[in-house]
Amino acid sequence: MNAKQLAAEAAVALIKDGMKVGLGTGSTAYFAIQKIGQRVQEEGLKVTCIATSIQSEELAQSLKIPMVGFEQLERLDITIDGADEADHHLQLIKGGGGALLREKIIAYITDHYVTIVDESKYVETLGKFYLPVEIVPFGWQRTFDHIKTLGGAPHLRQRDNAPYITDNGNYILDCDFKTIPDPESLQTKLNLIPGVVECGLFVNKTQTLIIGYNDGSIKTHKK
Amino acid sequence: MNAKQLAAEAAVALIKDGMKVGLGTGSTAYFAIQKIGQRVQEEGLKVTCIATSIQSEELAQSLKIPMVGFEQLERLDITIDGADEADHHLQLIKGGGGALLREKIIAYITDHYVTIVDESKYVETLGKFYLPVEIVPFGWQRTFDHIKTLGGAPHLRQRDNAPYITDNGNYILDCDFKTIPDPESLQTKLNLIPGVVECGLFVNKTQTLIIGYNDGSIKTHKK
Repeated sequence: MNAKQLAAEAAVALIKDGMKVGLGTGSTAYFAIQKIGQRVQEEGLKVTCIATSIQSEELAQSLKIPMVGFEQLERLDITIDGADEADHHLQLIKGGGGALLREKIIAYITDHYVTIVDESKYVETLGKFYLPVEIVPFGWQRTFDHIKTLGGAPHLRQRDNAPYITDNGNYILDCDFKTIPDPESLQTKLNLIPGVVECGLFVNKTQTLIIGYNDGSIKTHKK
Repeated sequence: MNAKQLAAEAAVALIKDGMKVGLGTGSTAYFAIQKIGQRVQEEGLKVTCIATSIQSEELAQSLKIPMVGFEQLERLDITIDGADEADHHLQLIKGGGGALLREKIIAYITDHYVTIVDESKYVETLGKFYLPVEIVPFGWQRTFDHIKTLGGAPHLRQRDNAPYITDNGNYILDCDFKTIPDPESLQTKLNLIPGVVECGLFVNKTQTLIIGYNDGSIKTHKK
């Protein structure tokens, strides 16, 4: 079992009968969804789930996991999702896949947010991974200038030689801050810039961080 | 001359040759654009302008005011715009017309931001006017719930029995906070909610507030 799968399966063990569950997106969350599907089919685990992406929704449906629309649930008992980086204060960078807003809305309605990563994503200080910032296309050059004054070198995310467009019709700036010693303060500064819709910093949201190691061990950090 | 026109014309007197000027939107800004047009045509005033709305852009063009695209200017010397409410600390509520994001982006690149109102808009404390908050359509019900926990009763803005859609493809919640004693703190709380794109609070942006009175007088407050 690889490091991602180890972390994912340890997280899925936290799910109990009757829970409302948020399903993450990405290569680590993939293993979690697979394991939930197995528990549904083999143990008869009863859950109601929503997904952070169409991709995860389709995977879950193929595994016969009961899914409902996002608007049907006001709160979730647990969400299991990956991250692009996690530090030892359990702060995250997410959004490499471009779905940061949907993932963040789901994080904010979740009682127990569980982040699963392999050891390569666990860092002393956030910032090596370029921070994704979702911005409104109108006047995006001024938003770009503004973020630059905060010390982050922004790059407009491209796909097929055109700006990448999010599900919400916005652009993404991938911002090289080198190091982010105070994610909470940076999050506030970014969100106060007009034109910024959301940033990929997930601050004080993770209650449980599970790290899978290549040697077959896992470590769990709780807040 | 009515109170709005008085305030508008006092503001236009601040414009000097060679300035880059932001043109506001609404019934008070209308008088400012009219006066700028008059100065361009009669005095040969030389300015380069951008507008906060298509409506103002068309008005300015009809008056032969030299206009450029938003992306062509990095900074503005002065912007003259109205407000839905202004308090004696020069904090504003804007966005009744739905263009708050574009207006805010322009405010943030302006060196001298001049707000013009008639006496009916000048209040002791902000909040009688419902605060417009622009939000992403996805998961808007959760954003609605979240804003409610801050004490503001939100109403989804409608037009023709459907949600009103902004230029950026978003919704607007008009939020009844009754009273907003600390606009800076509320702005931060709102902008940190995932799903909130921008709110109509303009905090610490106005350097000059010009109030027109029905008795024909004006008062100017500077920061």
